[in-house]
Amino acid sequence: MWGGSRALGRALAAGGWPRPPARCCPHVPNVGQERRQDLAQPNGSWSAAMRRHHQHLLAMTATGTWVRLPSYRHHHHPTEGTPGDTPGDTRLFPHAIDGAGAGFEFAMFLNATERRILCLCQTGPYLEGPPGMTHGGAIATIIDSTLGTCALAMAGMAMTANLSIDYLAPIPLGTVLLLDGRTERLEGRKMFLSCHVRAADGDTLHARATGLFIRLDPTKQRVKEEGSGQ
Amino acid sequence: MWGGSRALGRALAAGGWPRPPARCCPHVPNVGQERRQDLAQPNGSWSAAMRRHHQHLLAMTATGTWVRLPSYRHHHHPTEGTPGDTPGDTRLFPHAIDGAGAGFEFAMFLNATERRILCLCQTGPYLEGPPGMTHGGAIATIIDSTLGTCALAMAGMAMTANLSIDYLAPIPLGTVLLLDGRTERLEGRKMFLSCHVRAADGDTLHARATGLFIRLDPTKQRVKEEGSGQ
Repeated sequence: MWGGSRALGRALAAGGWPRPPARCCPHVPNVGQERRQDLAQPNGSWSAAMRRHHQHLLAMTATGTWVRLPSYRHHHHPTEGTPGDTPGDTRLFPHAIDGAGAGFEFAMFLNATERRILCLCQTGPYLEGPPGMTHGGAIATIIDSTLGTCALAMAGMAMTANLSIDYLAPIPLGTVLLLDGRTERLEGRKMFLSCHVRAADGDTLHARATGLFIRLDPTKQRVKEEGSGQ
Repeated sequence: MWGGSRALGRALAAGGWPRPPARCCPHVPNVGQERRQDLAQPNGSWSAAMRRHHQHLLAMTATGTWVRLPSYRHHHHPTEGTPGDTPGDTRLFPHAIDGAGAGFEFAMFLNATERRILCLCQTGPYLEGPPGMTHGGAIATIIDSTLGTCALAMAGMAMTANLSIDYLAPIPLGTVLLLDGRTERLEGRKMFLSCHVRAADGDTLHARATGLFIRLDPTKQRVKEEGSGQ
């Protein structure tokens, strides 16, 4: 499941995509410095392989075909009036684990023309399933986040309706993965996507997935936002 | 994906199920008190609904048909010789988030005769996807853990081969869920399972899933363990 973000909106607008509805408010007091830290930047926990592949992806943005997407721990506006609203301290699940490098380290790059997202991801030691291996739920999490970002790039706010994942080869903790998420087709509000999860080094195909996302009705979304005073 | 645990082995043996291979070593120095804390016990973060449903499930264990399963943050033997072995500080993904109640709070109950697991789960504020709602990856994580435990109950060590999830209704953060995981059929080393994710109160069906798990070859597993000095 996936919501929107202001930064992704800017990136999409730059790429010629329809911009999702504005959802952020700079006047909310608790939207402070920590909330604005871009976690898709290199830090001391990134392995040499992670840095090398990140550099390669950054180089691809030079022509403007690919756009780097920032990533934050929080929604920018935690009090917006959605059902089940939870004012207070929440975190986006892929950034929930404390400690750089302990959980997911990832950076996404969007190609709006190709309707495609690349996600570079290093799996930390707190993502364990079988001994020494990445948990199937952690793999599902980064796939859902990648495809959700791709769906958002197509049509604004969207929700996961189905996710089907084939786990083909175990992923040792510490592996650097390259997820390739693509829009396969659109049918009304339905968006059909696919994802391949490969080792960034060596090209092993660890998993492949399909995702069905449903675009939220922007009219209903606007009514909700107005109803909550936004 | 899912490995084994000593505690689950005991519970299965009590229920008449084949016990998975012993994988734990009480002599390892870093298997200390913190590593043995059972996190499937009530704590101050559990809501009144979570406590009430937990009491109901505990009452079902009185006749021995249902067995409560403990749950730990770590594998009991982090240095065992599996591929991708990661000695050092690892955490099982569903217990990776610091702070009682911030992430997943859950307790599982096994009915060995029915080949069925019930998992009571409270979704904390650090599991956010869309604003105020539980992330699709978090839902996949608790489903994979529930079905993985069910697969382990059938046949020892197993790995997820496919997970397919229909997300039917968004899950507000703080919801208490009851996951019902069942073994549908066995075909050689293949295990086909299903899972329904309902609100513990109100009975809303939030998600349903199917899982295909592959039982690991116990002979090869034994060779690996002997090869690593276990």
